[in-house]
Amino acid sequence: MRVLLAQINPIVGDVAGNTEKILQSISYGRSKDAELVIFPELVLSGYPPDDFLLLPHFIQELDRYFEKVVEATKNIAVILGTPRKNPKTEGKPLFNSAMIVSDQTLVGFQDKSLLPTYDVFDERRYFEPAPVNFAWEIRGKRVGVTICEDIWKHTQTIEQVDYIHDPIVDLQNQGLDFVVNLAASPFRMQKCQQRLEVCSGAASALKCPILLCNQVGGNDSLIFDGYSLYVSPEGELLQYAKGFEEDFLLVDLDKSAEPCSLKINDTEDFFKALVLGLRDYFRKQGLTKACLGISGGIDSAVVACIAAEALGKENVLGLMMPSRFSSEEGKNDAIQLIRNLGIKSKEISIEKPFQSYLDLLAPYFEGKAQDVTEENLQARIRGMLLMAFSNKLGYIVLSTGNKSELAMGYATLYGDMVGGLGVISDVTKMQVYDLARWINRSEEIISKNIIHKPPSAELREGQRDSDSLPDYAIVDDVLRAYVEEHRSPEEISKRYGYPLEVVIDLVKRIHRNEYKRRQSAPGLRVSARAFSVGRRFPIVQKWI
Amino acid sequence: MRVLLAQINPIVGDVAGNTEKILQSISYGRSKDAELVIFPELVLSGYPPDDFLLLPHFIQELDRYFEKVVEATKNIAVILGTPRKNPKTEGKPLFNSAMIVSDQTLVGFQDKSLLPTYDVFDERRYFEPAPVNFAWEIRGKRVGVTICEDIWKHTQTIEQVDYIHDPIVDLQNQGLDFVVNLAASPFRMQKCQQRLEVCSGAASALKCPILLCNQVGGNDSLIFDGYSLYVSPEGELLQYAKGFEEDFLLVDLDKSAEPCSLKINDTEDFFKALVLGLRDYFRKQGLTKACLGISGGIDSAVVACIAAEALGKENVLGLMMPSRFSSEEGKNDAIQLIRNLGIKSKEISIEKPFQSYLDLLAPYFEGKAQDVTEENLQARIRGMLLMAFSNKLGYIVLSTGNKSELAMGYATLYGDMVGGLGVISDVTKMQVYDLARWINRSEEIISKNIIHKPPSAELREGQRDSDSLPDYAIVDDVLRAYVEEHRSPEEISKRYGYPLEVVIDLVKRIHRNEYKRRQSAPGLRVSARAFSVGRRFPIVQKWI
Repeated sequence: MRVLLAQINPIVGDVAGNTEKILQSISYGRSKDAELVIFPELVLSGYPPDDFLLLPHFIQELDRYFEKVVEATKNIAVILGTPRKNPKTEGKPLFNSAMIVSDQTLVGFQDKSLLPTYDVFDERRYFEPAPVNFAWEIRGKRVGVTICEDIWKHTQTIEQVDYIHDPIVDLQNQGLDFVVNLAASPFRMQKCQQRLEVCSGAASALKCPILLCNQVGGNDSLIFDGYSLYVSPEGELLQYAKGFEEDFLLVDLDKSAEPCSLKINDTEDFFKALVLGLRDYFRKQGLTKACLGISGGIDSAVVACIAAEALGKENVLGLMMPSRFSSEEGKNDAIQLIRNLGIKSKEISIEKPFQSYLDLLAPYFEGKAQDVTEENLQARIRGMLLMAFSNKLGYIVLSTGNKSELAMGYATLYGDMVGGLGVISDVTKMQVYDLARWINRSEEIISKNIIHKPPSAELREGQRDSDSLPDYAIVDDVLRAYVEEHRSPEEISKRYGYPLEVVIDLVKRIHRNEYKRRQSAPGLRVSARAFSVGRRFPIVQKWI
Repeated sequence: MRVLLAQINPIVGDVAGNTEKILQSISYGRSKDAELVIFPELVLSGYPPDDFLLLPHFIQELDRYFEKVVEATKNIAVILGTPRKNPKTEGKPLFNSAMIVSDQTLVGFQDKSLLPTYDVFDERRYFEPAPVNFAWEIRGKRVGVTICEDIWKHTQTIEQVDYIHDPIVDLQNQGLDFVVNLAASPFRMQKCQQRLEVCSGAASALKCPILLCNQVGGNDSLIFDGYSLYVSPEGELLQYAKGFEEDFLLVDLDKSAEPCSLKINDTEDFFKALVLGLRDYFRKQGLTKACLGISGGIDSAVVACIAAEALGKENVLGLMMPSRFSSEEGKNDAIQLIRNLGIKSKEISIEKPFQSYLDLLAPYFEGKAQDVTEENLQARIRGMLLMAFSNKLGYIVLSTGNKSELAMGYATLYGDMVGGLGVISDVTKMQVYDLARWINRSEEIISKNIIHKPPSAELREGQRDSDSLPDYAIVDDVLRAYVEEHRSPEEISKRYGYPLEVVIDLVKRIHRNEYKRRQSAPGLRVSARAFSVGRRFPIVQKWI
């Protein structure tokens, strides 16, 4: 049997558009003599549909499109992900389901058994779990149908998998010809390798091939990397689809194939993920142009490179907004970067509005020393200028803060934190340097000076980030261990050999700055635990 | 048996402080000859503890405090809510549990069966449900122990209750002497009446009294109103605790009591809820002083009244920040309000920085007409001035936008949307007027002029909200029907008789402004569906 894995990029809520893509994919499959076309999880609504699932009129609308898909399956079978109504009156009103259709006939619905409700996932908010995964008869083959998480318990690959039911056990000894997995599995570093491990484990347990069809594309904070997989009964990778773009993977189950291995460069994928996330955030909203502040620092340099790659250099505007505290060196670095990238630029000094605020506030602040107030004023004037360009000329502001800064609160709310999208808000400072080196792999786009100078916000004379923070290498270790791995300060101190009081101080800063992050731009999620989605801590608390 | 319902106000994460309150309450109970003291749900951690529940070192810490509580129960019994580890390795790692202790001995743990995972609740993210609710033997009585949601399925009072298991059925025919319910049930209008209905239904079904002990206090966006209840086997209210403050309700189960009725004024409660939410947001973070922009409009007037009540008039600073577009009338209204309330005030014209931005940007915007850019500049200058007072003098900025404005995007991001807390962000414009009239019930604090003049942002000559929006009465109807009740535009149009295109336009605005609300200050939740918590819609979508 020939199977087409249609790794497509749906838009959340765009039921008509997504259906159009589905119908085109079915036509393509037919043209390639595929007997079965597989789609990602919840492809009809796009993943994650969030609270659209709570709107009865949204769910009703899906029914109309079911029919269009059924009609389009003459002489071909299709398995596609969609929410569907729970016919029972008790339990959550929906299932996260796989609709199985063959030759214009509905074969049935296989509902998802394991509903992730952790991290960025909230599936128990909407869905009732299936009690069992069946073997389905599709065009003479016995096919196990699973949806994303369903195959993740068996290999115990991730910690959070704490389900009691195991769909792989349901499917054992069922004489399956193959198993399909409809996925919407978001990117993070090494996630594809992990997905392959899970598929290998499932295939070996079931002694049959497994075909995983993953969603691709960015939806708000989440980035789906694609990399659909075809794995042998022995658990070996036989074929895989492209990463970070739509792709059709045509699999001939009757032909023998040689095992292959994933060819993935982690930093390249990291960059591609951010490019895709930014591009889809714009494209799916009909937006084309971005602006950002170019300070001569590493963060804005890397964001400018990502934006130029995603939107085209002609659609990116860099604003240089020097003050009395801006160094000549920084300005030259900014100019050089803008030239290297070929993006548009403007220079506007913030001195006049800055002086105007200082004069205006002087009578109220008499006798008070200079402090963070004056620093924030500068950052906020820059934010206001960026927003003025946004309002008047239609540029969307990109927020350039990295994860380490956001963790430490080393950013000005309503200042450098303004923007429609936090491009690197889930990228640590050390990873920003990795990206810069990767961007420079064949030619120097980000100057050595930008990469090597000590980080500074340049909001007062001679300011350095290191004046008030430990080295970013230390910050990043604590950040990863505390935020991603949930380790206690004591464990972190012991593991990395940092003094306990240093670790506790950093952890306190992380919690103390929750209020700033709550108002930050939505950010692209590329780690195991982002601040923007999938992490929920109160502002008001007395634990730390 | 005498039972004390200890309606206390815990702080999330403050395990030591919460334990202290618990021990004091036990002492008080003993002093009143109570044999049993009941506490709210998850009182040891405070509710909602959010992702603190994912930190193993947080859960371990709770164990230490269990012991302190056990020690304190000489000759008395206690039932208190706490997270506890799931001893099994499968399923979620925690239970939302009621610890039952008598005379320094642990009687056992009754875990929660029904785990709300809808609206603001995410309990399946953390907890495994209990399979059954038992009758417990406590000091010679047979007691059914339930936790909040456990009693909500039986009467089908709320739509979302879609559980298969019904703990009330477990407890039927068990010869119970009484049932306790440990609750952390957040406020919204008429919620206490609804809670009473649920208790009445449960008591009648079980033919025994029910004692509901609710949490009180504000935690981030959620406000818990208290109003703990004692209901007879016939479902009649016998006693209830105070709303919006800590209270001890001493119940003598052996004495006969006369039925009473809830004496609640809805608007008074609405006001009290906002006062408590604001007060606790400050108090629990060790904050004391607030500032806000006073425009002469109704929204800032009502917020100023709430703040003065919550923090004391001496801790509230009103900034008047007129521009060339501010009316004399508005200024006079602002001055009068400040005088009536007795709060501090400053006046700072925004003209100089405004002109400075206009001059600075003129060369870049040549040939472009005036538009929202210039309006936003004014709102953002005001936001910057408020934040400067915050940074320099330690005032926390209160955000004064109401729910109707936030729905429509009729607010400037980084402008009038700045602030640490959205005080009325879940209060519709019509409800703001209700609050104003209630504030004026005995003397005119908010002038008639403020209440009666047509709403205007005064960001351009002669601007009125009604220039670009339908009447707020229409906006509010659509807002409630679409956001709270999930009705389709067609249903709303039919129900209220508004033209379909008007309804669709308003619904589109609600979705289009998701990106602004995502960056708004956390807001106090007082409706069935707030924008700030409990509602999750994507920014990037093509449904509407």
